[in-house]
Amino acid sequence: MTPSDLSQPILVLKFGGTSIASPSLIQSAARRIANCRAEQMHVVCVVSAMGDTTDRLTSLAREVTENPPRREMDVLLSAGEVQSMALLSMALTELGVPAISFTGQQGGIVTDDRHAEARILRIDPDRVVEALAQDQVVVLAGFQGTDEQQEITTLGRGGSDTSAVAMAAALGAQRCEILTDVTGVFTADPNIVPDAVQISALSYDEMLEMANLGAKVLHGRSVELARRFLVPLVVASATEDRPGTRIVGKDEPMEEVVVRAVTDDRDVSKVSILSVPDEPGIAARLFSALGDQGVNVRLIVQAQSHEGHNDITFVVPSNTFIEKADLKKVVEEVGGASWIVDDEVALLNIVGEGIAREPGVAGKIFSVLAEEKINLDLISSSNLVISCVVKEADLVRGVRALHAALIQTDQG
Amino acid sequence: MTPSDLSQPILVLKFGGTSIASPSLIQSAARRIANCRAEQMHVVCVVSAMGDTTDRLTSLAREVTENPPRREMDVLLSAGEVQSMALLSMALTELGVPAISFTGQQGGIVTDDRHAEARILRIDPDRVVEALAQDQVVVLAGFQGTDEQQEITTLGRGGSDTSAVAMAAALGAQRCEILTDVTGVFTADPNIVPDAVQISALSYDEMLEMANLGAKVLHGRSVELARRFLVPLVVASATEDRPGTRIVGKDEPMEEVVVRAVTDDRDVSKVSILSVPDEPGIAARLFSALGDQGVNVRLIVQAQSHEGHNDITFVVPSNTFIEKADLKKVVEEVGGASWIVDDEVALLNIVGEGIAREPGVAGKIFSVLAEEKINLDLISSSNLVISCVVKEADLVRGVRALHAALIQTDQG
Repeated sequence: MTPSDLSQPILVLKFGGTSIASPSLIQSAARRIANCRAEQMHVVCVVSAMGDTTDRLTSLAREVTENPPRREMDVLLSAGEVQSMALLSMALTELGVPAISFTGQQGGIVTDDRHAEARILRIDPDRVVEALAQDQVVVLAGFQGTDEQQEITTLGRGGSDTSAVAMAAALGAQRCEILTDVTGVFTADPNIVPDAVQISALSYDEMLEMANLGAKVLHGRSVELARRFLVPLVVASATEDRPGTRIVGKDEPMEEVVVRAVTDDRDVSKVSILSVPDEPGIAARLFSALGDQGVNVRLIVQAQSHEGHNDITFVVPSNTFIEKADLKKVVEEVGGASWIVDDEVALLNIVGEGIAREPGVAGKIFSVLAEEKINLDLISSSNLVISCVVKEADLVRGVRALHAALIQTDQG
Repeated sequence: MTPSDLSQPILVLKFGGTSIASPSLIQSAARRIANCRAEQMHVVCVVSAMGDTTDRLTSLAREVTENPPRREMDVLLSAGEVQSMALLSMALTELGVPAISFTGQQGGIVTDDRHAEARILRIDPDRVVEALAQDQVVVLAGFQGTDEQQEITTLGRGGSDTSAVAMAAALGAQRCEILTDVTGVFTADPNIVPDAVQISALSYDEMLEMANLGAKVLHGRSVELARRFLVPLVVASATEDRPGTRIVGKDEPMEEVVVRAVTDDRDVSKVSILSVPDEPGIAARLFSALGDQGVNVRLIVQAQSHEGHNDITFVVPSNTFIEKADLKKVVEEVGGASWIVDDEVALLNIVGEGIAREPGVAGKIFSVLAEEKINLDLISSSNLVISCVVKEADLVRGVRALHAALIQTDQG
């Protein structure tokens, strides 16, 4: 039996940890699923661990050892999703909705063997399809899989989103809804910009840039996967029944705007490595030295050469950086003389498919910021995004001014 | 590779939930295992869920639904052992002891498909043997397995003991140690009889009778399994390093005594079903009606017939009985007229291989109890045990008197 033998379209719903943090939230998730079933859709729910379960398990591990082996950490964390999948399946049965829970392994999620950051190699959805054909709702543990040796693996940050999108792709699902504690993706952080509005639709590329630049709502990996397999994604509220934000291919209907959103990220640090020899391949060595330490570089700028040496500056997420990076080693790796870390910075990003199309955008951005007397520390731009590093104290003013100047708030 | 290819003898250690209830207890369990490894033994540890984890998961389920499906309940509970096995494996690694954790499935525990009370069909210990051959300590989740369809099952009460004994049998282990919060099996409950001493060795049959009559230290199923496969069992303290109680075949060296122990069980109810038609097979129907409801009958007595009707009286554990039994249905099943439940009773058991050998024992028991003016409600005896139902108020006096009269306290 293959997904195409099923009589009804398939909907994949992903519930984040905060949306199923208590028995009563699990019950309300079950009611939502029951409504989808009533609309003649086959439903697969992908669940994260309840609330702070993952944090609780992680601190238990830390109490036992400072260096938990990655294999055992994966085993430990996998228990969190197993718990929530069983409870959600019970809640569905209580509502009279036939349901069955599957671990990553039972759901056919086969990954490579890189514990804590495994990649999905393939999905063998036979048991899932069979259960759907029997009119059961499938509740699948997100974030986990097993490798070819049946070893339990986890997918790292944003892993449950990735599980959901991958399963949606494998099943040819009509869409994949990421249900969370916000109602959708906004034109800016509403806490900063009261005028910010929810975006009704944006492109995979725009969402990918936003995710990679620190938008918490979706992880870049899952957006990439959705783009590759053209899985229609929706970000919506887990508790409120209202339309969310659609993330779709460029050919799909969406509002044509130049700038889609102004986003910000305060949790970044700026690192400058001084007097790095000007040799080919230095940037690659730097990236890979940081990558080896699990640090995800957000933005990199190489300053002008002086006497055969460059200063290289890059921006990294503060948390993972402080936790993971052995900066001295990185500096030695690239032959730098010394380094400076600045935590009082923030990232300000202007995202939109129209940025490349409209040559005037960059100029407009810089004049708006100049009017606000905001100094730009670093600037980086791509087809879809212009990122500026500013002083953290200037961030709110900058975001508000740019939002007012660049975003039509009737687009939502 | 088979267990016989291993160069060192195999020791199976089972840690109960209270013995690994916190990170520091897990660390102390790991130290104990490290010592065993130092003695040139291959070690397999079987773990229960930490402390009250199983209770916590059960109440989460009850908050979601009053009738959790048994399949999903098994999935939910299995997460408890997965958590503790990962943490113990981490603690071992921290001590420099190579270790690997296995779920029931990974450990090759194949069961039938009776969720919540599955029976082990076979063990495929290939991965376990392979890990031992690589000098790893194997930490195995107790209480769980998977059926032939890879569905997660649990083994019911005493399940982790059963996992440990079954794995010890499959590996031809030198012995299986059940490590718990008592130091061994005693001649009587030390809280009742201050003179009670720890038994150094007793037979499988004696232990089985004691387990089936309410001794909490070991579950009957695991003792039965140990007897069948002649697995040498030891009950010992998880935290104190001192000899425990050996449970061995009759041919093994142990103290020859008439009475091994006087045990008691207060958590019982006496049920009488009145005016049951005197037909063949009534007792079987009664047993199976109670068995269907998950009630384990401890003792049954059929009173004299009057006018073609019998009164049937039996003793059951109070807790499971109150929780599970639909007594009205059972009474209808056997055609009884009415029933009486008496909770103010207790079970007093005299256990020993010598009871059948020495015809005077029964007489001695009854005279001791008569001198104490203790009325016997019901009496039942087998080769190995004489059980009396007494008023709960008489229990302590009865146990003390019998222990003083029948047990040589230098046997330990």
